Amino acid sequence: MAFSFNVSLEMDFDAAVEKVTETLKAHKFGVLTEINVDIVLKAKMDVDMPRYLILGACNPPIANQMIQADPDIGSVMPCNVLVRDAGNGQVVVAFLDPETVFGLSEQEAIKPILADAKQKLLAVYEDLKTK
Amino acid sequence: MAFSFNVSLEMDFDAAVEKVTETLKAHKFGVLTEINVDIVLKAKMDVDMPRYLILGACNPPIANQMIQADPDIGSVMPCNVLVRDAGNGQVVVAFLDPETVFGLSEQEAIKPILADAKQKLLAVYEDLKTK
Repeated sequence: MAFSFNVSLEMDFDAAVEKVTETLKAHKFGVLTEINVDIVLKAKMDVDMPRYLILGACNPPIANQMIQADPDIGSVMPCNVLVRDAGNGQVVVAFLDPETVFGLSEQEAIKPILADAKQKLLAVYEDLKTK
Repeated sequence: MAFSFNVSLEMDFDAAVEKVTETLKAHKFGVLTEINVDIVLKAKMDVDMPRYLILGACNPPIANQMIQADPDIGSVMPCNVLVRDAGNGQVVVAFLDPETVFGLSEQEAIKPILADAKQKLLAVYEDLKTK
């Protein structure tokens, strides 16, 4: 099972980041962290690469339920959304698939929570595709 | 296969965070992000919970190789280390297992990189257990 599902947007990178962030927010996912991997790798290793931004998204009620179900689940949280420049004017938005990734947990109680999380992220994905 | 491996430290929470951060650094993992989940959930939902800190660790050469092997792998990066208060004076440190989590990638070229990443994290884990 794939660890992510993604959509390609034909727009400027910064506009795509703004659209993703706003759409997440409209579906009650806040962005807790931003890692500009391209900037980190340029600074640490002098590597040149296309823009590559990892947004750490979080829906607090879902996060709370997940931790209740499996206290170690934080080692794979939050729910990342990757925004990367794929060239030719395309920006790829890759969503962590909660059912696959958090589904690595052996706690059965977590499964319905993940199904809910996935539905919410799929709604974000659909909005990005169609709006 | 478990998504994390963990060790329990018998010490003050802040001292544990400092020890984990320093040990990661000694093994060339920088900490890019810190999410105090307990503070987030208190602010957003008025939930009271024990301290729960997600450190986003990154070894730049490994991150670079991983992205070369699978451009969407960023949707499950960085390599988290969870530090949580487990009560009774115990602080649990849970490491994301790169072979399990990043191993969800279908790109065969990523496997040897993950074995290397796991060895490096196991060295951190051993140091935390024994030093």
